[in-house]
Amino acid sequence: MTHFFKVKTLDEVMALQQQFGPKEVETIAVESAFSRILAQDVTAPVNMPGFRRATMDGYAIQASASFGASESTPAWLDVQGSVPMGQMPDFVLAPGKAAAIATGGMLPRGADAVVMVEHTQIIDDTSLEIYKSVAPFQNVIVEDEDFKTGDVVLPAGIFIRPQEVGLAAGMGFSTLPVHQVPKVGIISTGDEIIPIHEEPSPGRIRDINSYTLSGFVQQAHAQPVQYGIIKDDPRALKTCCEQALAETDMVLISGGSSVGTRDYTVEVLSDLRDTDILVHGMSVSPGKPTILAKSGTTPVWGLPGQVVSAMVVMKMVVVPFLHRIQGYAVPKSLVRIPARLTRNVASAQGRRDFIRVTLENGPTGLMAKPVLGKSGLIRTMVHADGLLDIGENLEGLEKNTWTQVILL
Amino acid sequence: MTHFFKVKTLDEVMALQQQFGPKEVETIAVESAFSRILAQDVTAPVNMPGFRRATMDGYAIQASASFGASESTPAWLDVQGSVPMGQMPDFVLAPGKAAAIATGGMLPRGADAVVMVEHTQIIDDTSLEIYKSVAPFQNVIVEDEDFKTGDVVLPAGIFIRPQEVGLAAGMGFSTLPVHQVPKVGIISTGDEIIPIHEEPSPGRIRDINSYTLSGFVQQAHAQPVQYGIIKDDPRALKTCCEQALAETDMVLISGGSSVGTRDYTVEVLSDLRDTDILVHGMSVSPGKPTILAKSGTTPVWGLPGQVVSAMVVMKMVVVPFLHRIQGYAVPKSLVRIPARLTRNVASAQGRRDFIRVTLENGPTGLMAKPVLGKSGLIRTMVHADGLLDIGENLEGLEKNTWTQVILL
Repeated sequence: MTHFFKVKTLDEVMALQQQFGPKEVETIAVESAFSRILAQDVTAPVNMPGFRRATMDGYAIQASASFGASESTPAWLDVQGSVPMGQMPDFVLAPGKAAAIATGGMLPRGADAVVMVEHTQIIDDTSLEIYKSVAPFQNVIVEDEDFKTGDVVLPAGIFIRPQEVGLAAGMGFSTLPVHQVPKVGIISTGDEIIPIHEEPSPGRIRDINSYTLSGFVQQAHAQPVQYGIIKDDPRALKTCCEQALAETDMVLISGGSSVGTRDYTVEVLSDLRDTDILVHGMSVSPGKPTILAKSGTTPVWGLPGQVVSAMVVMKMVVVPFLHRIQGYAVPKSLVRIPARLTRNVASAQGRRDFIRVTLENGPTGLMAKPVLGKSGLIRTMVHADGLLDIGENLEGLEKNTWTQVILL
Repeated sequence: MTHFFKVKTLDEVMALQQQFGPKEVETIAVESAFSRILAQDVTAPVNMPGFRRATMDGYAIQASASFGASESTPAWLDVQGSVPMGQMPDFVLAPGKAAAIATGGMLPRGADAVVMVEHTQIIDDTSLEIYKSVAPFQNVIVEDEDFKTGDVVLPAGIFIRPQEVGLAAGMGFSTLPVHQVPKVGIISTGDEIIPIHEEPSPGRIRDINSYTLSGFVQQAHAQPVQYGIIKDDPRALKTCCEQALAETDMVLISGGSSVGTRDYTVEVLSDLRDTDILVHGMSVSPGKPTILAKSGTTPVWGLPGQVVSAMVVMKMVVVPFLHRIQGYAVPKSLVRIPARLTRNVASAQGRRDFIRVTLENGPTGLMAKPVLGKSGLIRTMVHADGLLDIGENLEGLEKNTWTQVILL
């Protein structure tokens, strides 16, 4: 109990992220950059698109030549030529002339707008009628309209989505500087835990946490490294921990579920070189018996052995720390969906409660239906679509309250 | 124009998913199953957890021995022994006795509840005071409370999340049957498109679509296969298309943006063996010039060359078809977040409009702020957090309307 002065609220634990920094930078091919975190600002080396470009099929003209044109009083222009795709027009558009152009084509000098083909009619080989006027730069993207030379187009610390990959490629970056993918060491402990290929004798259960935690690490686009199952033996746990610390960027020890094991974890962590216990207990349910230590520069978590608690802590607490190591500049916010509660839910004041819920369509939007079943049952997480977050200052929520559900 | 009788609404296009089936089944290691689609029901081979298990640290007792216990009138019990973790207790609990037990421990025969250690006090070596009564099965998970032998615990066609990986592992499945990962062939076409490592001369732009489309394929947990850039030449496109059809499970041809190219794509697709054009034009903006063909059993898409249109169609239309090939039993629903519009937005009736928006915190929740800039600018997709879906029967949405935003 002497460690219990380090019990922290969820917000206090989250603030400790500041103590950890991002992984080193590496350069990778742009086509492999999806889901990575950009490590340096990307600056436009040239204007984009780089030339005056048509956004519609039609005719490049000087806009003023169309002013006043209508169905009843069309404008008449001569067709001077047509623009081949992918080439610079080899002519200058004379006043009162038009040039056929397709979407993406480069406007000839002298043209400042495109009239859509739907608003024109070819009368004979060279004469064109225009039925609608266009303003200067209508249906045109100008040379630097997407980006100007020197613009920061992608800031450091963003998650690279498909559109960011495309933008970087489009500007000619065949490589990008990104943070290395963190490795996360995963250790299961407990005398009652056996490898999944063994048949459990009464009193034993197969290892679940190694697999769920690994799944969450993969979901976060990091790399799990499995260290197997360690019996409730401090010396073995210490050796395994030291190996994981040497080889990975974050270590997760999911406790055997006995009291003894939890004490082992703190004992072992306290005994490691250059290690501080930052958190010993968290006012979160499920997830109270959570430990966070800082060993050198590496975070080491002692997670509850109970499978549901371990998953909730992983989702709500550990993954944001992982994002920090991945190099996110601003914490990635969890997606929260509004839904109406289907029944009263109790909670303890001073404790942050996460309730497993399913989401169903109701008459006024989504309904959040608490999943029945004790918190030790993994099926409650398998049936759940999300977690309902009940704040520390609430004693529960009433039926029909609008709530925010964090998607699982 | 003769093809325009095949212009379809978004819903009509979505219904065509039924014409395509899932990939074959393969067996993979359970630790690799995250993000895969389960191909067969998983049935519990045994009861879980398989024995009567404590969910709290404390004492295993017969609940009736605690009835009436309170702070002022504690129940007295003898401690008969303690349960070692991971083992079957080698004794039967006698009436009126208690056995020390840790969370996860197996209850001895004769015990049906656990009293929490916080509600007890050890008086001497063998005497225990209990200050709170427990009901039968309190703080206990019974043998088949998580799953019963023969229960379908995971149905075919689900996306495998971390909790599903853990559940399968916990039941002893070291492998799982899943659908093979689809390969998606990606072809960029257009005389104006050049490889990203080349310097564009005026009138040309670097290939963006190959990279964005590849990103969306990766985001959907499928495998992109690049076929490079094909000039506006029907013969070359046909050859490339045939190769992609032979090697992949879905083909994406992002059109050069000229009218001519679009006709090439339909022409080439019509000319392929055993191929029907299912869609030629979609009443969606951006994304109208979208083509869908069925070649044998394989979907082939002609996507707009315009980079933003190609991304919107990919996100809203193509990815659901990909999910179908991946083996999803029920279509995966897009995550939609309610947000209030910051200004009026116009739309055309009879057309489904997708507006790029950023999400910002406002006084009454999230605000959806339309991204300014023409739809041909890739930066509008880079700045956007989501897409606002404006239905076919609306002429626009007014400022302050609550809307649903699809996250990008």
